[in-house]
Amino acid sequence: MTPIGQLLDQLQARTTTSVEITERHLNAAEDTSGEGARVFTHIDADQALREAARTDHLRESGTDQPLLGLPVSVKDLFDVAGEVTTAGSVVLANAAPAAKDSSVVARLRAAGAVLIGRTNMTEFAYSGLGLNPHYGTPANPWDRANRRIPGGSSSGAAVSVTDLMAAAAIGTDTGGSVRIPAALCGLVGFKPTARRVPMDGIVPLARSLDSVGPIAPTVECCARLDAVLSGDFYRPLETKPLTRMRFGILQGYVLEGLDEPTAFAFQEALLAIQSAGAHTDPVHFDALNRIPASNQTAAAEAFAWHRNLLESSGHRYDPHVSARILHGAGMLAADFLDLMQARREIIAEAENLFAPYDAILLPTTPWIAPPIAELEASDDAYFHANGAMLRNTSIFNFLDGCALSIPIHRPGTAPVGLMLANSAGLDRQVLEAGAAIEAIMNQR
Amino acid sequence: MTPIGQLLDQLQARTTTSVEITERHLNAAEDTSGEGARVFTHIDADQALREAARTDHLRESGTDQPLLGLPVSVKDLFDVAGEVTTAGSVVLANAAPAAKDSSVVARLRAAGAVLIGRTNMTEFAYSGLGLNPHYGTPANPWDRANRRIPGGSSSGAAVSVTDLMAAAAIGTDTGGSVRIPAALCGLVGFKPTARRVPMDGIVPLARSLDSVGPIAPTVECCARLDAVLSGDFYRPLETKPLTRMRFGILQGYVLEGLDEPTAFAFQEALLAIQSAGAHTDPVHFDALNRIPASNQTAAAEAFAWHRNLLESSGHRYDPHVSARILHGAGMLAADFLDLMQARREIIAEAENLFAPYDAILLPTTPWIAPPIAELEASDDAYFHANGAMLRNTSIFNFLDGCALSIPIHRPGTAPVGLMLANSAGLDRQVLEAGAAIEAIMNQR
Repeated sequence: MTPIGQLLDQLQARTTTSVEITERHLNAAEDTSGEGARVFTHIDADQALREAARTDHLRESGTDQPLLGLPVSVKDLFDVAGEVTTAGSVVLANAAPAAKDSSVVARLRAAGAVLIGRTNMTEFAYSGLGLNPHYGTPANPWDRANRRIPGGSSSGAAVSVTDLMAAAAIGTDTGGSVRIPAALCGLVGFKPTARRVPMDGIVPLARSLDSVGPIAPTVECCARLDAVLSGDFYRPLETKPLTRMRFGILQGYVLEGLDEPTAFAFQEALLAIQSAGAHTDPVHFDALNRIPASNQTAAAEAFAWHRNLLESSGHRYDPHVSARILHGAGMLAADFLDLMQARREIIAEAENLFAPYDAILLPTTPWIAPPIAELEASDDAYFHANGAMLRNTSIFNFLDGCALSIPIHRPGTAPVGLMLANSAGLDRQVLEAGAAIEAIMNQR
Repeated sequence: MTPIGQLLDQLQARTTTSVEITERHLNAAEDTSGEGARVFTHIDADQALREAARTDHLRESGTDQPLLGLPVSVKDLFDVAGEVTTAGSVVLANAAPAAKDSSVVARLRAAGAVLIGRTNMTEFAYSGLGLNPHYGTPANPWDRANRRIPGGSSSGAAVSVTDLMAAAAIGTDTGGSVRIPAALCGLVGFKPTARRVPMDGIVPLARSLDSVGPIAPTVECCARLDAVLSGDFYRPLETKPLTRMRFGILQGYVLEGLDEPTAFAFQEALLAIQSAGAHTDPVHFDALNRIPASNQTAAAEAFAWHRNLLESSGHRYDPHVSARILHGAGMLAADFLDLMQARREIIAEAENLFAPYDAILLPTTPWIAPPIAELEASDDAYFHANGAMLRNTSIFNFLDGCALSIPIHRPGTAPVGLMLANSAGLDRQVLEAGAAIEAIMNQR
């Protein structure tokens, strides 16, 4: 994988062209021995190549947009004018094509990105595993012989990047759907503060928790993409020395039940961070135990959007997904409002507690990726693994914060992610801290 | 009534003192032939006089805070440290005293205001009429022989100003509770964009609709108080000439069923505005008819806060109030969320439609104040009048906008209010338009 800054430099130096990069990605996607058929739900090679040629031409005429000529995949829940948004379902497969681009897609286009295709996902984004019974499940790049889960819901997004079918991917994150596949596949994933990116033209899961973020090879790649998604100018990250950074190590259930590779990589990363001179404190967040009980609103939010569709076509949903949505059917407005009020109070508590730190650190997921077949074999295994994968990430959707996952495993071992998180609006601070830790991980 | 700018000038010129003004207000409040016993639920004359003396002393020492020495009443749902917040109910009469000031009260104190007392209100702020079976209903200043309603829910707030028991009043507005009593009592009332004023330490009615605003003799008074409530510096209103203003006259049901005095005053005001050279357009807002059906979330929001209290003490509520709250008991979260989504869409439509105008104009209420006895005599009359009084004002809580009511009746006739409204954040624009119209009303 090549960081996108490097690709953009190569394009600007004319050592490659967008058409050349796009062709390479399309070839990887179309290679029948690869995962392409399960990574994308829709790909239009001709159109991607036309777009690539157009950006090459623009570059020749002196244009230099921030992502000019960069092939990017988008999760199949963003509206692209003229294409059908299926959200990984079969029930929307015959829906009308989108009349216009979602703001996210419009911003990518305005920045010069080439849309390489629509990526597969957990149906309607409602699971952290990435299994999809309709379009198949792309295998994790690690230990491919055993076909492990990619993580979800932005499953195809992550594998499109690891398998060189796109330079970077755009996903959504309602409970961890960007960070989980990034962590399990050895990539960087960033869930920004939700309100920074416009949410129109996106199939929602739970509007109070949904966010849009990038999956890419490096923290800097994510920062560049985040600038485009949020309508900011990109300014290079400034990484102050780790000796001047403070991290809070979140205590409590987030550290329970770690499998051996995750526990090892996490401890090794913390030692490296401490050895590099960063200040770390254990952080005890009293309200942490109230979050799982309070975080029950997603199903009601999903049900509000899905109820008509469930009535007409519920039998064609992945039963794992429809079962989760139906949990929200009976919730009373007053109970929903009580939880929203609890959420506001817990957010205020977290903001105070997290304020002294550049970022709060915890493992992104408690486990490395399990084999797909194990989870397909049993509903118990599916729901148990799903709960485990979402446990740590969903905290920061509930807290309306921002969170980054960076790889911390040794090369050749199972991917493990370290999560850096903080309160709403501290996106740049978290990205800069992530870049600093990424640098010492790479120096090992 | 004296505008507060003039009072502050007198204080600064030493032609009066805060103690003198406060004594005058306290005498009016304590006059047993007046409405004081029904205007206030709590008054502590000694404390108010001590506060007044303290501000006089501060002024002598050269301090000049924006409201220094100005006696202000606060609705009995704002926490004041050491006092019981009853919200016009008897069920909270034995609650613990507030541990600390609400932010609103803290800002008033920091600005030098003297708290003259806690004003009576519709129980829990849940009606636009101002009737209170527990603490009595203060009579409208107009046609007092017939004891007409003051409007609500900030009933005591308005009468505290008309009857010279306070220089100005602070109320709350969830569906019109500042603007209705202002209109019916011949005062100016301002409902700011909700998020501009902090809502902590306030008994909520419906958190998605609640706002805090002033009731006072003039638009300029409201602008001064709004600056303190919102934490802004006060800058004098700049009223551009009416020849350079554009107003949209909202069409549809807001103009239906006007009684004769309201229709006459509204038409006369529009003619005066047009004669002064302002541009006016009729504005047809297609989504207006969807608002009443969509605006059903308040009961569910109220129920979420009240349900424990209703269970233990529901029999001690005003049955008009508890009946309204219980309407929200059975609402499903999904229905609530659908209405919230409809609300976002309708707000976006309104923002586009209203954008060309300095303000949208409509009658604040369709009727002048009816006699209290008529509404006490029949539940049908109560609920019919309540729906009528809230009909126009509640539109702008639903739209999350800002709205001002200014008097437009001829002296000696029944008070009628003109509402000027616009989208969120355009508070100053609406206040400046209001000041311009107020000036031509005063020149008649």
